Amino acid sequence: MKKHNFNAGPSILPREVIEDTAKAILDFNGSGLSLMEISHRAKDFQPVVDEAEALFKELLNIPEGYSVLFLGGGASLEFCMVPFNFLEKKAAYLNTGTWAKKAIKEAKGFGEIIEIASSADDNYSFIPKAYTIPTDADYLHITTNNTIFGTEMIKDIDSPIPMVADMSSDIFSRPIDVSKYICIYGGAQKNLAPAGLTFVIVKNDAVGKVSRYVPTMLNYQTHINSGSMFNTPPVVPVYSALLTLRWLKAQGGVKEMERRAIEKATLLYAEIDRNKLFVGTAAEEDRSRMNICFVMNSGYKDLEADFLKFATERGMIGIKGHRSVGGFRASCYNAMSKESVLALINCMQEFEKLH
Amino acid sequence: MKKHNFNAGPSILPREVIEDTAKAILDFNGSGLSLMEISHRAKDFQPVVDEAEALFKELLNIPEGYSVLFLGGGASLEFCMVPFNFLEKKAAYLNTGTWAKKAIKEAKGFGEIIEIASSADDNYSFIPKAYTIPTDADYLHITTNNTIFGTEMIKDIDSPIPMVADMSSDIFSRPIDVSKYICIYGGAQKNLAPAGLTFVIVKNDAVGKVSRYVPTMLNYQTHINSGSMFNTPPVVPVYSALLTLRWLKAQGGVKEMERRAIEKATLLYAEIDRNKLFVGTAAEEDRSRMNICFVMNSGYKDLEADFLKFATERGMIGIKGHRSVGGFRASCYNAMSKESVLALINCMQEFEKLH
Repeated sequence: MKKHNFNAGPSILPREVIEDTAKAILDFNGSGLSLMEISHRAKDFQPVVDEAEALFKELLNIPEGYSVLFLGGGASLEFCMVPFNFLEKKAAYLNTGTWAKKAIKEAKGFGEIIEIASSADDNYSFIPKAYTIPTDADYLHITTNNTIFGTEMIKDIDSPIPMVADMSSDIFSRPIDVSKYICIYGGAQKNLAPAGLTFVIVKNDAVGKVSRYVPTMLNYQTHINSGSMFNTPPVVPVYSALLTLRWLKAQGGVKEMERRAIEKATLLYAEIDRNKLFVGTAAEEDRSRMNICFVMNSGYKDLEADFLKFATERGMIGIKGHRSVGGFRASCYNAMSKESVLALINCMQEFEKLH
Repeated sequence: MKKHNFNAGPSILPREVIEDTAKAILDFNGSGLSLMEISHRAKDFQPVVDEAEALFKELLNIPEGYSVLFLGGGASLEFCMVPFNFLEKKAAYLNTGTWAKKAIKEAKGFGEIIEIASSADDNYSFIPKAYTIPTDADYLHITTNNTIFGTEMIKDIDSPIPMVADMSSDIFSRPIDVSKYICIYGGAQKNLAPAGLTFVIVKNDAVGKVSRYVPTMLNYQTHINSGSMFNTPPVVPVYSALLTLRWLKAQGGVKEMERRAIEKATLLYAEIDRNKLFVGTAAEEDRSRMNICFVMNSGYKDLEADFLKFATERGMIGIKGHRSVGGFRASCYNAMSKESVLALINCMQEFEKLH
């Protein structure tokens, strides 16, 4: 039976990326060696990093003066690297979910943090829009997609100060105006590569302006200077990322990814709104295209476990909602096919017929 | 032609680890999903982390009261995590090579550092033995094997204060008395797994004693509390590490690895000492079993490029020495077979006959 992988992360990757990674693990570039045992200084591997960086810049239309870094440690490590590198006195944060809250917690160790708005009191079911951005803050930090609560900022907002964004879960799903940001970061394990890789897009001249001591590995300048090769990068995930970037380009780039994301999300939300058994959890205007959250409608709450079993038996994987929201979450990242979304919709319709 | 992988790191791994990782990337545990796209919270993955931790403890005979952590960021990130977590006022460091020096540089950002001895003036060709360890320091940091210069501390030294050790390149190559250390860390990419994974063995009650603010991701307590699952761990390298740990156990554990390491190193050093063309670079009593460094003997210096070409044509990979030493370096980690060492020796003998 075909499995439909709706995992929130690590999550679905294009099948050819998976198969070509497996091939390279058995034999990298016909070298007789595995991708797992080649030196990162080997002459075969530098082109991998170079091409990945170039495709990143091409696909996201990144202006001159920015670097793309491939690091380890995850987006959670960036929560402290961002203030380490950019926070001199004061920073502004928009609190839109669990990950935004974690970023805020870390930043508080480094200076004054202004939480300009929060939807915490409504279980993060919407993106706050009424706020004032302090013009004397060093940066505004946003989390563009909230994996757990299923809300998303699908357009780059305007800000009088430079922005920093965690785009772990929506990178490459739409065009971005990178010039609005001094730093965009994310864990690779949603839309790019297997877990263990962090991407960072950083504006070169924004780095090095803080007066504190920054440990070498936490200093973006270290990685800019060395082209992500200061220490051994996560070789296998970097290679898989390159394969995904090639796939993205071949599919038509981020505009095509956005078209597909809209198509998939529109189909699934339409079914959630139509089906008497289900109801969406996020405010309609802030609904995420990446993580589509829904619960059983009133009157049908006791069917939750039954639907999970019903859908799982039909090949749906990873649709159980996060405990903070309950119900269901269908993560529809770039590699998710329309066919899998239709299979889930079919499950919802079949289940409705039984009740 | 068979390739003999003498890379210094990332480096050779057991062939079955490579093949079984490739299989899991195509289909993990018959789940119909790739290892690259399963959730780290999936019920299939927790047993991977649990078994890896248990085997780590069993193979190294780790006493009660220690945790084994699987993190990202590399040993270079540990250079600052160690002082973040353990350095209150003063720490002692033994300067035995490039990596020790980098660890010292990072620690200086956190407190007073006593460099108890250094072999820097002799291009790190030996391990200093005459030093006094200050009893009022928080810890003594050592680098047990020096990948670049080919020296190794093959026995746990005695210290009046707790030790911290970077064992990136010799972990699992001999039994260790873990009780002498509060922390043993290393990049996995030599003897354990593909790049992108850091292992940390940490004594639980040594953590949490410093007064400084420690960012969440840099605090060992975070990862002890969450069993390495505070954020998404590097799933593929963790799985490969489990396969290597199973392999180590099946082969006879660290005692057997030590026997093989001695056997391989003895064979190769004997040839270096016998062959008129070559000479070893490290002091005999400190010769590393893991990284065997040699240069052309006086009178034959101009044959260096020729021998590199000669050996490369016969399948020897990664034997070019680090630029700090020159000449050649044959890294003989656990997965390196005696047959490959004999093939290199054969090259050296064949080349000698030509000159």
